[in-house]
Amino acid sequence: MLVALALGTQIGRLQSQPALNLMPYPSSVQSGAGSLKIDSSFTVGLAGYTEPRLDRAAERFLRQLSRQTAIPLAGKPAASSQAVLMIHTDRASKEIQELGEDESYILEVSATGAKLNAPTPLGTLHGLQTFLQLVEVSPEGFAAPAVTINDRPRFPWRGLMIDSARHFVPLDVLRRNIDGLEAVKMNVFHWHLSENQGFRVESKKFPKLHEMGSDGLYYTQDEIHDLIEYAHDRGIRVVPEFDVPGHSTAWFVGYPELASAPGPYEIERKWGVFDPAFDPTSEKTYKFLDQFIAEMAKLFPDHFFHVGGDEVNGKQWDANPKIKEFIKAHGLKNNEGLQSYFNKKLEPLVSKHGKSMVGWDEVLDPTLPKDIVIQSWRGQDSLASAAKQGFRGILSNGYYLDLGWSAARHYAVDPLSGTAANLSPEEKTRILGGESCMWAEYINPENIDSRIWPRNAVIAERLWSPQETTDVASMHTRMEILSTRLEWLGLTHKTYHRQMLQRIAGPSSPEEFAALATLASVVEPVKDYTREETATTEPTSATPLNRLVDAVPLESATARQFGELVDKFIATTCHDPAAEARLRAQLTAWRDNDAKLQALAQRSFFVKEVAATSQDLSSMGAVGLAALDFIAKGQRAPDDWKAQQLAVIQQVEKSKGQLLLMPAPAVQKLIEAASAGGVCSSTH
Amino acid sequence: MLVALALGTQIGRLQSQPALNLMPYPSSVQSGAGSLKIDSSFTVGLAGYTEPRLDRAAERFLRQLSRQTAIPLAGKPAASSQAVLMIHTDRASKEIQELGEDESYILEVSATGAKLNAPTPLGTLHGLQTFLQLVEVSPEGFAAPAVTINDRPRFPWRGLMIDSARHFVPLDVLRRNIDGLEAVKMNVFHWHLSENQGFRVESKKFPKLHEMGSDGLYYTQDEIHDLIEYAHDRGIRVVPEFDVPGHSTAWFVGYPELASAPGPYEIERKWGVFDPAFDPTSEKTYKFLDQFIAEMAKLFPDHFFHVGGDEVNGKQWDANPKIKEFIKAHGLKNNEGLQSYFNKKLEPLVSKHGKSMVGWDEVLDPTLPKDIVIQSWRGQDSLASAAKQGFRGILSNGYYLDLGWSAARHYAVDPLSGTAANLSPEEKTRILGGESCMWAEYINPENIDSRIWPRNAVIAERLWSPQETTDVASMHTRMEILSTRLEWLGLTHKTYHRQMLQRIAGPSSPEEFAALATLASVVEPVKDYTREETATTEPTSATPLNRLVDAVPLESATARQFGELVDKFIATTCHDPAAEARLRAQLTAWRDNDAKLQALAQRSFFVKEVAATSQDLSSMGAVGLAALDFIAKGQRAPDDWKAQQLAVIQQVEKSKGQLLLMPAPAVQKLIEAASAGGVCSSTH
Repeated sequence: MLVALALGTQIGRLQSQPALNLMPYPSSVQSGAGSLKIDSSFTVGLAGYTEPRLDRAAERFLRQLSRQTAIPLAGKPAASSQAVLMIHTDRASKEIQELGEDESYILEVSATGAKLNAPTPLGTLHGLQTFLQLVEVSPEGFAAPAVTINDRPRFPWRGLMIDSARHFVPLDVLRRNIDGLEAVKMNVFHWHLSENQGFRVESKKFPKLHEMGSDGLYYTQDEIHDLIEYAHDRGIRVVPEFDVPGHSTAWFVGYPELASAPGPYEIERKWGVFDPAFDPTSEKTYKFLDQFIAEMAKLFPDHFFHVGGDEVNGKQWDANPKIKEFIKAHGLKNNEGLQSYFNKKLEPLVSKHGKSMVGWDEVLDPTLPKDIVIQSWRGQDSLASAAKQGFRGILSNGYYLDLGWSAARHYAVDPLSGTAANLSPEEKTRILGGESCMWAEYINPENIDSRIWPRNAVIAERLWSPQETTDVASMHTRMEILSTRLEWLGLTHKTYHRQMLQRIAGPSSPEEFAALATLASVVEPVKDYTREETATTEPTSATPLNRLVDAVPLESATARQFGELVDKFIATTCHDPAAEARLRAQLTAWRDNDAKLQALAQRSFFVKEVAATSQDLSSMGAVGLAALDFIAKGQRAPDDWKAQQLAVIQQVEKSKGQLLLMPAPAVQKLIEAASAGGVCSSTH
Repeated sequence: MLVALALGTQIGRLQSQPALNLMPYPSSVQSGAGSLKIDSSFTVGLAGYTEPRLDRAAERFLRQLSRQTAIPLAGKPAASSQAVLMIHTDRASKEIQELGEDESYILEVSATGAKLNAPTPLGTLHGLQTFLQLVEVSPEGFAAPAVTINDRPRFPWRGLMIDSARHFVPLDVLRRNIDGLEAVKMNVFHWHLSENQGFRVESKKFPKLHEMGSDGLYYTQDEIHDLIEYAHDRGIRVVPEFDVPGHSTAWFVGYPELASAPGPYEIERKWGVFDPAFDPTSEKTYKFLDQFIAEMAKLFPDHFFHVGGDEVNGKQWDANPKIKEFIKAHGLKNNEGLQSYFNKKLEPLVSKHGKSMVGWDEVLDPTLPKDIVIQSWRGQDSLASAAKQGFRGILSNGYYLDLGWSAARHYAVDPLSGTAANLSPEEKTRILGGESCMWAEYINPENIDSRIWPRNAVIAERLWSPQETTDVASMHTRMEILSTRLEWLGLTHKTYHRQMLQRIAGPSSPEEFAALATLASVVEPVKDYTREETATTEPTSATPLNRLVDAVPLESATARQFGELVDKFIATTCHDPAAEARLRAQLTAWRDNDAKLQALAQRSFFVKEVAATSQDLSSMGAVGLAALDFIAKGQRAPDDWKAQQLAVIQQVEKSKGQLLLMPAPAVQKLIEAASAGGVCSSTH
């Protein structure tokens, strides 16, 4: 190893294009000489501290290596101390995984073997994932490059929240996504388990919760126990969330007496913020929650227990004279005061069972114990303010996967930016990390993976890698490579797309299907919270998710690459013939696409629905070509032409069928380049 | 329904292009007026005879309908007799499914509802599959066309054999393929469970069979029981095969005393025909087989029990003086005589446990009871000869999926053709049907589905549909549509391809990957039994199946379509400008493809391996373009040019990297058209 180190060159983490296709990128990477060939003689051995979890991890690692290479490998770790990859773990981690445990590891790969050393099994698990990412096809077969990696996370809390309440998420879907979390070194699965639309956990103490509140779609306690074990095997904590006092209609179907209005209640089918809320003035509420938390605290071993606390609209409280009276009698200012009162009664019930309470921004109250954790959907400033008051926090603002932001936009969100950048070192340690959030209005088992991956990987990198790891081009390259790797875990974020398109098309010729795929490649669903607004009929939990808006990824790689090419072309003052030829080919294909799709639009309801967008794509292609023509002739395009074309772009940019045509801004740049004498056309 | 019938027009089964995308095509289809809309109000009700299997079938049907439409549907059949689809089953089928039970059904769909009537649950299961295939996207959403279908199978034995011995096939892979069998109305899963390379069943009586003969890769009896239930739920019998006296090395690892040579034995790792065989002269052999069959006869409830019997090379018998002596002493002519002796001792052991013996051609012996069934890898003549002697038979010759034949070639194979066409009606009834065979030298869980599907569906049609259903163009159209439908069952025959290509490519640009996909789209693995011959190193069960030859489908749709286009073009005496333009575009893309692949071939071992084929593709593209140029100019191409080009084609047609470049014969036709004055060029 010394030789390799001496020969090696430093691959700095500040380098704009990391040489290794790793995500999240490690904190320190030093390249060596040569590479380690991976063939059927590959073995792995365990030394130092051992435990069954490590054996299972080695077996899973071998299975995974075998899957990504298709090389049959022995299914068990070798007994020998001469294995190709020798793992040494120093000591056990905590039996119940804790926040802030040592997750570091050192991985040394040389041409003759590899060593993975870690203080605890958590580091071992992370190092194995890094090794899997190092293995790539080479001119001689599969190999891992010689390298020394010294790695540890930046933040101790790196999570994904999945809402399995609005739409039920089957266990196999959760498992494959937990595999994905392991691959990107996230260590928290935050499980959002109750909502207006469903209560998803079997309660033996209060069986009407799942029996009446779930349409039969809930997780049994055995299943939950198994999933927690599954996550624990992968170094992932499971934090349950039971949202109170709002977001709670499904509880009241079986137990209307807990609500602030008499009921009866039905499971909510629509989306939005609803009125039902627990009655904070009733001792019944606390007696119930005490017993409920007692049961759930046993079922979920993690030290943290999430009580939600968000978006109470207060309407039921306002409408209940007894509650209004209570507010007055107890000197509470208003409904917020009443929710503080509720939280102060709730927190001891949580801590009594050995747990720390987690809640969304709204639960923050200076008089609560400093032990609680704030999860912020509001942002870094809110977290910084909490940190100054002594509270710990995790960031979710900027990490909402359902809003359809680009990977680059998520990547730019740092928990320690904004006001948080100016915190004292001690205050900064209170910012524990962050969590991406997969809210579930528009997901089902078919498309959920595509809403989480690959974008979740760049959030994972933000939370693991050094703060300076910010090169966007490198991120895009590595994200695409990782995205392909994630398929070996059974994630369906890539495969779902063609299958959904084929449902949309129905029987179709290869040319028709290609035209649909071309249209699909340049559109994205409407962003943020506009999906409800733009719907023609109010969506519910029974609405089929089978339209093009459900079938396209939330970020169009084609549109991004087209935009990059336009920028590159204009940066050369339009003097790059290769780039021009590629732009022209792309724009021509778009212009001609609608004609190929028209017959299919006659046959398929779902294609008909996007016919206007298809026409827009043609118009946009024609506009872009016209701009290129001006540029090619060295003519400055006239102002009235520019105005006409910009009007077309403006029309094209309006969402139709809840879809946005993503290359429009880049085509607009071409129009402007064609019209602005100095930028392009005058230089020809 | 009467109205619809009156308005309906007969869609005859002889019509060359069936109007409905059904496979296997039903024996009688009568179209009605309008269509039945499928939305979230869809329900299904069961009437007449009921049993839990029918409830489960209705639930599975609803799940499947929901999956293919993404419409959330109630998970259970409706209690109402007013369901949209009303199912009426007359009576129970046999508790243990028997050969020749009534599998017919009548399905009537009108604009207002649908009725499925069947004498037994077997017909009900088939009718539900037909209904699922009727549902397609329409201009108004999902719908099933109004139609009356009266359907029944042509043959009572319609099976798929999977060899899970040479390569172990995990249970989830078997289950999804059994789902596929249900979709195409096959009713036998023939499970090849023992081989030289592995013994795959847990034996409680003789545990060393699976403990020493399987590398730990075997099915427990509980798993087998569950799989049989799974198949039974889908109207599918499970026929086990334990191959004796040859193909049996894996038995002898634990029980060398049963073999004809002393041993010790190891699990075989190579492919081929091997020497080890049971000792037919030893009473130990029959005592063992008696107890073994007793155990397996209980585990597998089906009335048929397959004993293999194929390919005994006799070398161990020749080398054993005691056995040679025995042959002489018993007046047996030779080794074949000895195998007959063995079969005559074996058959009573099978029938004693209530089973009928099935064996490959070699077991046929006129002195055996007429109760046995011959499975023929030799062909229709062999079956006809057996039928004349009173034996029943099933055809597998022509249905070997591993040989890489085209769908059209399999489709043309009819169990009642050749000598069998001239059998008397009574003799013909002895031809029970056929079985496709998936031998397992070159399959693993990743590519097995692609070796079975979609081609198995056309064999299923041959065995189900009327003999006159032979239109190849219609078959291709319906096969492609079915192939897409089968993905909703979780079959991976389409998704595996891109994933394997991505492993082969490693990190690559979209252009490089597209070039690899283009190459992959026009090649097929070498055919029949040439894969061993053409291998550079002898393949074994440990050989990774990760090369392009493992990743491409066994039939290239692109090459087939290109060939059809060339034929069409030449048929117009080369006067079809649209066809010419398409040919030119295709040939140009092929000619230019290699340049795009060269950088990747420098980086990836697996791409490097196919570099010669990639160059061949370019050469072939150039040749085809040159031929088109002559044709376009109306010139007759000179003879020396023709000779040169044919030499190129001859070179290109040689397999390299175990791949065949499939469009070569079509390009040769273009050369010949360019050179033959009368066909094309002279007419310009």
